Amino acid sequence: MIAEQTLTEHYIRVRAHSEAICLGLETEDYVVQPIADVSPPKWHLGHTTWFWETFVLVPNAPNYRIFHEDFSYVFNSYYETIGKRVLRTDRGNLSRPTVAGVYAYRAYVDEHMSHFLNTSDLSPDLYALIQLGLNHEQQHQELLITDIKYILGHNPLFPAIDMPLTNPSGHKRLNAREERTITIPEGIYSIGHQNSGPDAGSFYFDNELARHKVYLNKTTITNGLTTNGEYLAFMEAGGYQNFRYWLSDGWAWVKNNGVQAPLYWHKIDGEWWNYSFAGLAPVDLNEPVCHVSQYEADAYARWTGQRLPTEFEWEAAAAQLSWGARWEWTNSAYLPYPGFTTAEGAVGEYNGKFMSGQIVLRGASVATPEGHSRSTYRNFFQPDKRWQFTGIRLIVE
Amino acid sequence: MIAEQTLTEHYIRVRAHSEAICLGLETEDYVVQPIADVSPPKWHLGHTTWFWETFVLVPNAPNYRIFHEDFSYVFNSYYETIGKRVLRTDRGNLSRPTVAGVYAYRAYVDEHMSHFLNTSDLSPDLYALIQLGLNHEQQHQELLITDIKYILGHNPLFPAIDMPLTNPSGHKRLNAREERTITIPEGIYSIGHQNSGPDAGSFYFDNELARHKVYLNKTTITNGLTTNGEYLAFMEAGGYQNFRYWLSDGWAWVKNNGVQAPLYWHKIDGEWWNYSFAGLAPVDLNEPVCHVSQYEADAYARWTGQRLPTEFEWEAAAAQLSWGARWEWTNSAYLPYPGFTTAEGAVGEYNGKFMSGQIVLRGASVATPEGHSRSTYRNFFQPDKRWQFTGIRLIVE
Amino acid sequence: MIAEQTLTEHYIRVRAHSEAICLGLETEDYVVQPIADVSPPKWHLGHTTWFWETFVLVPNAPNYRIFHEDFSYVFNSYYETIGKRVLRTDRGNLSRPTVAGVYAYRAYVDEHMSHFLNTSDLSPDLYALIQLGLNHEQQHQELLITDIKYILGHNPLFPAIDMPLTNPSGHKRLNAREERTITIPEGIYSIGHQNSGPDAGSFYFDNELARHKVYLNKTTITNGLTTNGEYLAFMEAGGYQNFRYWLSDGWAWVKNNGVQAPLYWHKIDGEWWNYSFAGLAPVDLNEPVCHVSQYEADAYARWTGQRLPTEFEWEAAAAQLSWGARWEWTNSAYLPYPGFTTAEGAVGEYNGKFMSGQIVLRGASVATPEGHSRSTYRNFFQPDKRWQFTGIRLIVE
Amino acid sequence: MIAEQTLTEHYIRVRAHSEAICLGLETEDYVVQPIADVSPPKWHLGHTTWFWETFVLVPNAPNYRIFHEDFSYVFNSYYETIGKRVLRTDRGNLSRPTVAGVYAYRAYVDEHMSHFLNTSDLSPDLYALIQLGLNHEQQHQELLITDIKYILGHNPLFPAIDMPLTNPSGHKRLNAREERTITIPEGIYSIGHQNSGPDAGSFYFDNELARHKVYLNKTTITNGLTTNGEYLAFMEAGGYQNFRYWLSDGWAWVKNNGVQAPLYWHKIDGEWWNYSFAGLAPVDLNEPVCHVSQYEADAYARWTGQRLPTEFEWEAAAAQLSWGARWEWTNSAYLPYPGFTTAEGAVGEYNGKFMSGQIVLRGASVATPEGHSRSTYRNFFQPDKRWQFTGIRLIVE
Repeated sequence: MIAEQTLTEHYIRVRAHSEAICLGLETEDYVVQPIADVSPPKWHLGHTTWFWETFVLVPNAPNYRIFHEDFSYVFNSYYETIGKRVLRTDRGNLSRPTVAGVYAYRAYVDEHMSHFLNTSDLSPDLYALIQLGLNHEQQHQELLITDIKYILGHNPLFPAIDMPLTNPSGHKRLNAREERTITIPEGIYSIGHQNSGPDAGSFYFDNELARHKVYLNKTTITNGLTTNGEYLAFMEAGGYQNFRYWLSDGWAWVKNNGVQAPLYWHKIDGEWWNYSFAGLAPVDLNEPVCHVSQYEADAYARWTGQRLPTEFEWEAAAAQLSWGARWEWTNSAYLPYPGFTTAEGAVGEYNGKFMSGQIVLRGASVATPEGHSRSTYRNFFQPDKRWQFTGIRLIVE
Repeated sequence: MIAEQTLTEHYIRVRAHSEAICLGLETEDYVVQPIADVSPPKWHLGHTTWFWETFVLVPNAPNYRIFHEDFSYVFNSYYETIGKRVLRTDRGNLSRPTVAGVYAYRAYVDEHMSHFLNTSDLSPDLYALIQLGLNHEQQHQELLITDIKYILGHNPLFPAIDMPLTNPSGHKRLNAREERTITIPEGIYSIGHQNSGPDAGSFYFDNELARHKVYLNKTTITNGLTTNGEYLAFMEAGGYQNFRYWLSDGWAWVKNNGVQAPLYWHKIDGEWWNYSFAGLAPVDLNEPVCHVSQYEADAYARWTGQRLPTEFEWEAAAAQLSWGARWEWTNSAYLPYPGFTTAEGAVGEYNGKFMSGQIVLRGASVATPEGHSRSTYRNFFQPDKRWQFTGIRLIVE
Repeated sequence: MIAEQTLTEHYIRVRAHSEAICLGLETEDYVVQPIADVSPPKWHLGHTTWFWETFVLVPNAPNYRIFHEDFSYVFNSYYETIGKRVLRTDRGNLSRPTVAGVYAYRAYVDEHMSHFLNTSDLSPDLYALIQLGLNHEQQHQELLITDIKYILGHNPLFPAIDMPLTNPSGHKRLNAREERTITIPEGIYSIGHQNSGPDAGSFYFDNELARHKVYLNKTTITNGLTTNGEYLAFMEAGGYQNFRYWLSDGWAWVKNNGVQAPLYWHKIDGEWWNYSFAGLAPVDLNEPVCHVSQYEADAYARWTGQRLPTEFEWEAAAAQLSWGARWEWTNSAYLPYPGFTTAEGAVGEYNGKFMSGQIVLRGASVATPEGHSRSTYRNFFQPDKRWQFTGIRLIVE
Repeated sequence: MIAEQTLTEHYIRVRAHSEAICLGLETEDYVVQPIADVSPPKWHLGHTTWFWETFVLVPNAPNYRIFHEDFSYVFNSYYETIGKRVLRTDRGNLSRPTVAGVYAYRAYVDEHMSHFLNTSDLSPDLYALIQLGLNHEQQHQELLITDIKYILGHNPLFPAIDMPLTNPSGHKRLNAREERTITIPEGIYSIGHQNSGPDAGSFYFDNELARHKVYLNKTTITNGLTTNGEYLAFMEAGGYQNFRYWLSDGWAWVKNNGVQAPLYWHKIDGEWWNYSFAGLAPVDLNEPVCHVSQYEADAYARWTGQRLPTEFEWEAAAAQLSWGARWEWTNSAYLPYPGFTTAEGAVGEYNGKFMSGQIVLRGASVATPEGHSRSTYRNFFQPDKRWQFTGIRLIVE
């Protein structure tokens, strides 16, 4: 009985955080989609709601009536199992349902979900599905923050808004005197979620399994993240003009897109500024660099004569590292662990189908909601993406 | 003194109509841009306001202070003379300025314009510029209507809204018994705006000059527009499947875009429906066909064994025609009349630079504001465009 | 009897000229297609042969056996009536049939055609079809020359070859003292092919009909073409950098393609050179400018304060003009004359279907074969094309 | 002294094989480039020659004069260190230098190389560079074969030619009774080139280093490759129609390209045929499937309930496997081994810069020249590529 009440409360708290992220928005900010990667905030709010309605309420809640029959078409995303989906790039063309309509949808589903959670004996499968739904909503909370930043940061008015980030200060790198590196010895390490012992029963995504053994050489990793000041030195040394530092795909990306600095940086009257939720301000040289692609991270590492860690090196060292300010690019492709299996049904489409062409990021960022990070978490994006709060940690050799 | 008062009133009435068109919109409807041709409604409202501020108030109104220095960047359109413009396809990515901000901009400029008009002795040039501004705003009123229709008509919820159209009923074609054709004899006709006599002093665009002589053969033109029922017969006869009816560019357009019917038509359970501001409804076979490209109009004409009129034939017959329900595709390219000259300065960019690759449409439509149509008016679009209220009139030979 | 013999001889002479154009080519030069507009020379040689085989021999020559059943697929062009065609951009990917194979195809068809022409009583329709085929082959002779020039002129080795041009010298503009302008008075002019009187029975394309009356204002036209030197003055005055001189589409074309000079011009160590069949050489300032788009022709005319002629003005003045060095851009869209009708069948696709989006050029060029020019000839290309031998003549006002 | 003589002979033998591959070609076949991935055969012949001239003769052979100064521009490929390169997609637009010119270039360079090799004391670095050049030429020999196949296999005449493949028969899969699987036990395996012991001094690419330890679970791998018959069963079970079998990127690739079968397969009158150098013939159900992308290999594996091997599993089992008929797709991204370092200078660009977005293939194919395969060889392509002789081996779990 206690457990179910706690679950309801947890559900309500997670759902409320999605809305808290949007408190500073104008109605218009909810609607636009400046690039295909960035979804309109109202879509995130609707899509996460559609998840609860479609996967929990419709199959399990007796007499539940769906809120609006066209919403499934509008708010579906990549779950190809469930009907025809709206083309992803079209999301920003839909003025209806309105923002008010989406909030009404949320309220309706939340009311039914609360009732359902309070009155049902959940099977283990259903309990697991609800945990998945909560983590799914938390993933979209981070996307909400990054997408809102993109929308406002590409507006010529550069609006400032309040945004509830996680420990947004305190992530500056320790100064040079205190800087440490961490060395892990050569040997066999166990990687992936530990499904027994103290972590048994805690949440994990399917891609964190199976826990398996990896042989690593002796590795030394920096405890601090690369700062804006360090990255600026790379820029001023001609880093974006010299193909030698770049992967072939990365160099093509730089040339085709005219890239000259991290995302959100602007050179104004000879000085570098960048956009944050506080508005445009001069670049803080002591902050960890943010919004770089893996191509940029890799080029920076080569310029320093170092390299990016693999995801295995990162996880092996994680317990000794300060992490959480930036998603840290690894040089590991996002591929299945030995023994990885896919769940049945629509939910099983979740992770495995993306195991091609993407790079693993480890850690967490100031946009990651509390309770949604762990050292075995495998985030993943294509190497050219940089609208997430991405940063750089180096292996020193 | 009377004249200036009347001008202020006219200004206020025109400006109010732009806002009346938007009365049925939700805030979200003002923001999106589903295709490059369709601008967000708030952009139209801002751009027309920017015209008054930039061309009238800033150079002429003493002590006028611009409303917001970034608005010129946001609301400029094709006037390359005036600073860097926002790329046209990016208009739908801008959530700010908000809709409320745009209305505040309108109110601010309207107040200053009213004061200016009430207190100034207008030079002939300035008077002409204000007339141009009023006609410019009226052009955007028609675009507002067509763009709103596109936004709502491509939304899966197909919303219905109130929209003040011009004589939206009453444009059905006369029935067969009453149908007439009009024949004009071979000879020399004068084409273009008559800058003297009864029309002297009335407004015209530069592209309606110079009035010049054209030699026409004897021509017979239908008084009625092609109806949905007649067009459906073309469709059912395989019109979209047979290249013989199509111009080469038109056939490529059909194939590349999978075109099978006029815009806004949907085949649902074997029946054709179309979207209007009243929502989805079965196609009314007696209404003039609407939202066809010139390629479709031309193909339909060939299928019937007839052809489209030239703009000269149309104008020569205009006094005897019933027109005003649809913009009527001609088979005339949009080119300068003999003696056409371009005005100096930014306003001079208005029409001449578009005299390449476009087709003249004559008449007016249910979306054309009152007082903005005349028989010498030359509207123009590329031959593949069909989000305007375009229709078909035939020459019978 | 005489007539048929003469026709055979004429056939042989026209066919031989196609091959004479290619005498200087290496086998490799016959194969490539650097842009979609430029067909491989072997394709032209095969396509013109396919015309004779398909339209003359197969339906008319008893017991004729086609040379190779797949050649129809390979060498068809835009005649959609006749089976599936090879996508135009794929022509340059086909190494087979070989060049030797194409010449064998030509020899085989020529032998059968000679026999057929020598032994048949030709109906008037068939006689007309053969005239059409000869003119069709002559059109491809000009394309052969322009396409070969494009292929060699875009090769980093800039090869020089012998090429039989028509009066390639002697087309320099008269010097200033002798320069004349020609003025035609206001009035009614008859335009188009005269199907009776002295021209009755001479060849014409369907688009030169119907002869019709046009009312023209008094017009003064230059007798000389714009020279390289005059065009260079436009370039040095910033012509390519100032949007004011350009049509909107033209300015977009300049920007998107980084256009800075006519085709084949190269700035080498501060001097302008251009490529001709004699190889790279310094630009001759006295030659008529060549390889300009209509956008460039129009911009140049605006910069001088003049304008391009309409095709009607050109034809009305033609008898008094020196023409033939360059195809001269008009400012007339390629549209049907009053009374234009399309022939039945595949041959009827010839001209009418292209009457959209193209501009009329008048005159002829150094690449036009002898006997293929007349003052009523309507050549047509999109306004951005400039790989033909195109030039500029002005109306002085 | 013996060693140098042997090296000259080896050089001559390798160089001769490149030309032997092209013996069956017509001149025209050397010229075309139907897609960006496929280079014209004459380009391969020129580019490999340019390698010797640029990296060996110019810096080392006294008094060597380059054959033609523009050839460096034409035949450079991805070595950005060495001047401006021809855009890769433009290679098929160059009719000059001619095929005869390229063979003259080869003869000239071969003569100077032979003389140089016969008369020089080679430093260890230069000896290594020559080994690299020979292996580079062998890589292009395989590309010559695959590119020629693409050119002829996409020609509507489907020409048959003689082509010297490596053991082109004998690669059929053993029949079911004899079929074996190989199991390797859990444990630590050493992966990569062994730079000491018996393999010391043998050639390797930089990407095969450093030899390092990998921990593998117990794995069972099939000895036979997937046959055409087995793959056809996947096709007939709707494999290309069901997104569940596909990676997300793979499904998009299937949809965007309308993929329905391996490359070179054609359904003719209800039967599957495929193109080989012998021409079009019915698919041989017992041959190993060929010309599949990694997306297809992965989807097939999922459909069977199995998976692709990692490159580490493959290498650990290699000594017990029959391999060499097809390049075998792994599910390993092409990434640096621990301790990988890049050589200095242009040659150092060779492999490392491509370590992004590509997949490792192991083994060799019927197009791989003799002496160019070993169990540590890491071939790599993007997962959508399938014009190489690629096939499928499964891990059974």
